[in-house]
Amino acid sequence: MNAGFEFISSGTVTSPGGFMAGAAHAGIKKKDLDLGILASEMPCDAAGLFTRNRIKAAPVVLCQQRLKGGRATGVVVNSGCANACTGEQGLADAEEMASLAAAIIGTSPEQVLAASTGVIGHMLPMERLRAGIKQISLSRDGGHEFAKAIMTTDTVPKEVAVKVKEGNYIIGGAAKGAGMIHPDLATFLCFLTTDASVEPDFLQYALKQAADVSFNMVSIDGDTSTNDTLLLLANGRAGNQMISVDTESAEVFQRALGELCITLAKMMARDGEGATTLIEVTVSGAPDLAAARQVARTVASSTLVKTAVNGRDPNWGRVMAAAGRSGVEIVESKIDLYLNTICLAKAGRPQPFDHAGAVKQLSQTEVFFTLNLNLGSGSAIAWGCDLTEDYVRINSHHTT
Amino acid sequence: MNAGFEFISSGTVTSPGGFMAGAAHAGIKKKDLDLGILASEMPCDAAGLFTRNRIKAAPVVLCQQRLKGGRATGVVVNSGCANACTGEQGLADAEEMASLAAAIIGTSPEQVLAASTGVIGHMLPMERLRAGIKQISLSRDGGHEFAKAIMTTDTVPKEVAVKVKEGNYIIGGAAKGAGMIHPDLATFLCFLTTDASVEPDFLQYALKQAADVSFNMVSIDGDTSTNDTLLLLANGRAGNQMISVDTESAEVFQRALGELCITLAKMMARDGEGATTLIEVTVSGAPDLAAARQVARTVASSTLVKTAVNGRDPNWGRVMAAAGRSGVEIVESKIDLYLNTICLAKAGRPQPFDHAGAVKQLSQTEVFFTLNLNLGSGSAIAWGCDLTEDYVRINSHHTT
Repeated sequence: MNAGFEFISSGTVTSPGGFMAGAAHAGIKKKDLDLGILASEMPCDAAGLFTRNRIKAAPVVLCQQRLKGGRATGVVVNSGCANACTGEQGLADAEEMASLAAAIIGTSPEQVLAASTGVIGHMLPMERLRAGIKQISLSRDGGHEFAKAIMTTDTVPKEVAVKVKEGNYIIGGAAKGAGMIHPDLATFLCFLTTDASVEPDFLQYALKQAADVSFNMVSIDGDTSTNDTLLLLANGRAGNQMISVDTESAEVFQRALGELCITLAKMMARDGEGATTLIEVTVSGAPDLAAARQVARTVASSTLVKTAVNGRDPNWGRVMAAAGRSGVEIVESKIDLYLNTICLAKAGRPQPFDHAGAVKQLSQTEVFFTLNLNLGSGSAIAWGCDLTEDYVRINSHHTT
Repeated sequence: MNAGFEFISSGTVTSPGGFMAGAAHAGIKKKDLDLGILASEMPCDAAGLFTRNRIKAAPVVLCQQRLKGGRATGVVVNSGCANACTGEQGLADAEEMASLAAAIIGTSPEQVLAASTGVIGHMLPMERLRAGIKQISLSRDGGHEFAKAIMTTDTVPKEVAVKVKEGNYIIGGAAKGAGMIHPDLATFLCFLTTDASVEPDFLQYALKQAADVSFNMVSIDGDTSTNDTLLLLANGRAGNQMISVDTESAEVFQRALGELCITLAKMMARDGEGATTLIEVTVSGAPDLAAARQVARTVASSTLVKTAVNGRDPNWGRVMAAAGRSGVEIVESKIDLYLNTICLAKAGRPQPFDHAGAVKQLSQTEVFFTLNLNLGSGSAIAWGCDLTEDYVRINSHHTT
């Protein structure tokens, strides 16, 4: 038992009580599952965060409208087509998709949210979608299929759940995202569920807090998508006393939700398109939290840092240069820089280090850079992945 | 004769009267020229722009100190070692490098500027540099060798000159930069010379104006280097009436300098590490100039746009998504998007287009995206290049 909660073996988005899911291959993608429904037996309090891209996909517009009431029962998701840059017809298609799913779930259309991921600028193939959605049957163990249906260039599904002792509730999650990933969410869909009873305002607050230390600290390629969607549904089925702000139970919920999101965020970074290595950048001694986050994200997303890691090249000047262009008023002569436990620079100056040992450290599947700016007490962690020739291959041939 | 000036065949940094240059292989790089001197017969008015990275290389610090007086006679440049993150010793080495060059030029040490490019975090190999610098002899046709000596991963030297009719003077330039290239200058050294007589304040102003439409609109990989240096030396040898602000001669000088810088900037983008295609992004109809520049730079530097061009994939949604995340308040339903002359989207919506024709257009060595935001009158052009597997290969093995 760690901090009041523990991870569940094979946990997923249907691990919390009262949630069901199912998926189908509708033919939006050439093969594999491409359509999924996630639903609760009873209406949920719902919170959401969405892309800050000025170009928003139709399902994002739909979610933002429907979440004003703070309630939802389920969500329908397709991969293979983003339904972005599709205008009024795109919005009508997203609405129809939600209505069709509502019939499967057995709820009213406005209780259903929608999300899409895939290529921008194409209309949803509605005939296939209509036929496909009828094949979906919801079940308590449908979470794993749902996690597969939302994948695009992901190589593995990303799903996890934690059980919280106090209150005896579960939080589950499924996410996708392997490219177009950058702070301010990512291309990136993530669906979180809980059977806890949570006060609605705190639910939205807790989701934002959790995203800020997890998904907003992941960068794969610097591109923020048009479809980023993060939803959290709470159905209260666990019968716990309602969790509200500034209570001990809120702290545990926040911690458990944060850890779950960090776990999913790291899964995303590790599975970045073409990636072989997870890069974790820890910044301490920053003037404040915002500065720490800024430096950590800039280093984790630097093309030259990412290629150096790919080449197993301890070219630490690239880390310094990225920190220097982050916009934070760092002081070169104060910076200490470590690769795992190897000190590369002390007070901004080169340190003699075991080059072969550093290359060996860089050859692991996880690499840790630690920068102490020695200016204040702000600290933050960001995640990224190496940039490989495979990334270029994958992204050079996406629609063709 | 175009707008009062014309490009000179085989023009370079020593094309203007009174400038000399020379180069040597000092052994800082394993092979090829790696040390160069550029000098004027007489002291010059000098203007400069430098990296805004908080980590500044020693020669940048030296230049910024020495340019306070606004005068210089020459500059010494090495490739293969950035002399960055090298502390007091690094600054002493930069000063010694300038002093050694001053002896060759026949001027006082403080009249000489310095620049370096290469790997960060290594001390300059001063013994080799001392021996190498003695081999340099300056000549009126040494510009081409100088342009070669400043190259790192560049595959071709970048040099050009224009002759201005009114005043009968020449402006020449040599630049390098193939990686760590991003707005706010680039990794990127550029040395401009002119035999025009130019009022010193206007010289600095004109340099900034020219950089804003050229080098600051180029992005190769989003990383801003520690060593970016742009210098302009004017020795007045042409005997023209001094060019000062708000005169007709100032307009012609500004235009000629701007065109020369744009030519060098495009050479840099075209020769981006691993690049096969120059990407030119024109934005019009922006709310203002700053917004136009922001959108153009964001699209030109988008990893996903760059990989789509590499794959000859008319995946125009990536252009829209990049514009949407630029921070500018664009309106999706107003945007027209063209690839060369092919309309891909009108009022933010997909247009039917000849896919094979678009693929063919994308297979040229220059690709033009044009976005009309239809919001105002701001316009700007930015340049980038495609992202290739070769870029990753080159940058994965830099120091090792």
